[in-house]
Amino acid sequence: MRISPVHTSLSACPCQHDYRGSAIARIIGDNARTLQHIATTVKMWVFEENINGRKLSDIINTEHENVKYLPGYKLPENVVAVPKLSDAAMGADLLVFVVPHQFIRTLCDEMVGCVSARARGITLIKGIYEGPEGLRLISDVIREKMEIDVSVLMGANIANEVAAEKFCESTIGSRNVENGLLFKELLTTPNFRITVVEDADTVELCGALKNIVAVSAGFCDGLQCGDNTKAAVIRLGLMEMITFAQLFSKNGVVSTSTFLESCGVADLIATCYGGRNRRAAEAFVRTGKSIEVLEKEIFNGQKLQGPATSAEVYRILQQKCLVNRFPLFTAVYQICFEKRPVQEMISCLQSHPEDM
Amino acid sequence: MRISPVHTSLSACPCQHDYRGSAIARIIGDNARTLQHIATTVKMWVFEENINGRKLSDIINTEHENVKYLPGYKLPENVVAVPKLSDAAMGADLLVFVVPHQFIRTLCDEMVGCVSARARGITLIKGIYEGPEGLRLISDVIREKMEIDVSVLMGANIANEVAAEKFCESTIGSRNVENGLLFKELLTTPNFRITVVEDADTVELCGALKNIVAVSAGFCDGLQCGDNTKAAVIRLGLMEMITFAQLFSKNGVVSTSTFLESCGVADLIATCYGGRNRRAAEAFVRTGKSIEVLEKEIFNGQKLQGPATSAEVYRILQQKCLVNRFPLFTAVYQICFEKRPVQEMISCLQSHPEDM
Repeated sequence: MRISPVHTSLSACPCQHDYRGSAIARIIGDNARTLQHIATTVKMWVFEENINGRKLSDIINTEHENVKYLPGYKLPENVVAVPKLSDAAMGADLLVFVVPHQFIRTLCDEMVGCVSARARGITLIKGIYEGPEGLRLISDVIREKMEIDVSVLMGANIANEVAAEKFCESTIGSRNVENGLLFKELLTTPNFRITVVEDADTVELCGALKNIVAVSAGFCDGLQCGDNTKAAVIRLGLMEMITFAQLFSKNGVVSTSTFLESCGVADLIATCYGGRNRRAAEAFVRTGKSIEVLEKEIFNGQKLQGPATSAEVYRILQQKCLVNRFPLFTAVYQICFEKRPVQEMISCLQSHPEDM
Repeated sequence: MRISPVHTSLSACPCQHDYRGSAIARIIGDNARTLQHIATTVKMWVFEENINGRKLSDIINTEHENVKYLPGYKLPENVVAVPKLSDAAMGADLLVFVVPHQFIRTLCDEMVGCVSARARGITLIKGIYEGPEGLRLISDVIREKMEIDVSVLMGANIANEVAAEKFCESTIGSRNVENGLLFKELLTTPNFRITVVEDADTVELCGALKNIVAVSAGFCDGLQCGDNTKAAVIRLGLMEMITFAQLFSKNGVVSTSTFLESCGVADLIATCYGGRNRRAAEAFVRTGKSIEVLEKEIFNGQKLQGPATSAEVYRILQQKCLVNRFPLFTAVYQICFEKRPVQEMISCLQSHPEDM
């Protein structure tokens, strides 16, 4: 998305693989029309696809609906679909990143040099990398590739409910509070309520790690463990998220209160009851099919973040000899990819370290 | 329950109105058989009832099953049902309180003078009182009436799942850690995992206040708000729980980490997805019937803790001119009892104070 220069402009890569890009474009488009210091036009990069003989970007720009990734919801007319990424990003001051995390490096390479000198970004991408030196955040990759300040937006924001304008909360994590507040202004509506915190790494880690916990919650559902066990799994998962953030956050102090924001406990709850990772994990237990097969059969080939993130986290923990401190994260990885029996998740709960 | 004197004995009032008394008696009975310093026999006070011409206490003592309040699960044979409270409590060193909170005063009066001089208690009762000086905890009432040290046990412990020995976690709050650890020993099993914290007032408040939040979660379900809104309601409810504890806890410092224990976030999640208060509140929205009618129709006349606690809390907040700081708790009370339209819960979320 990019607002042509009045005061500020904005560029993003809407997600091809879920509804989030278009859901957030609806909000940004509406706000860009009313905010004085934001240019009205919002350029939205769309990965071009052919839909029944028509280009998706043409459909969006004439019918103002992303018929493939957010059918049934009109986009504001000032949101303009742009199929070439460098065109969408050209001169942009504000960039909103919403793409599957495996594409971010390539996309950043395409955008470098296009954006405004005062550009700053915000990422909605959930995931982490395991690099040669251990943990790499998505925001780190964008920061390094594009040399801009990057905030993050995370929270209990299942996209079709955001599009339906049902009330939700969200958290912006921003090392630069001024930038965080600017993005808050751009993204806030009465039904999309945002809190800004400085603890940006923790906010971003929450968004990635909660998907691992959602897989364990789905295992619980598959095993028909009941509400008590599921609540225990979610709580112990939260404790592992906190411990992980404390060990790996580069930004210094990790505040427990960040986990009480929407990005923490609320997103965790929504994901463990409503998300795709939970659903896939339940199906994994009930059908005995592999994660890869389920991704193909249930999710049309879309890669699930939970199992993938558990693998990244497992390698990071191995590198630092910390596997034993994260029995739940480790169990999720081993159950998904190393044929560890799913029933062993229960014994891992029974012997979970008490001192977290 | 009471263990006849070897080293320690134990007395409690099992709940007539839900399964918790008998579910916990199964654990205590099993542990009393194996723990060296605990007497084997566990006396369990049972409010006498006639079941098809037989006394409930006789059925329990011959068939070792509470056929009315925990059918389908055998009680250990060393758990002995006693219909007279003073007999059950006589000489007891350890008392476990599991009764509907409205009966606790009378029952304490009956037990005073019966118990051992070194008696100490633990309460599983969820609720609070509004006294002339504001908030009164159930444990305060027991402490004052019986002049004993009182711990509390709270957590994500839906009783039929505890009885089915599905894994769960629980929290003991104890001002006297030694007593807390003693009760932990008595109550722990591989599938009933306990953490002891000193912040006992907070643990107890969590158990009462979460039922108010569960009502608002049920309203959400009734209004078909979706997962994001429900997660926001649970999170904002948790924030009100924390603020309430900070304002009203008599024990000094309230630790945020207590809310990360099973008594906090885990019990809240289990209750907001699986509990009776949630279910009643959903029915309240869908049917338009009053809470009183629903208690009769769905719960066989059992009083729901959530609406009742919201009324107690509302009066306490009024007394201290703090109503405005607790919009969600207040909305629950007003919707349940003052015909405030349930749709207004959403506007109360939109304008919820940000600084919690």
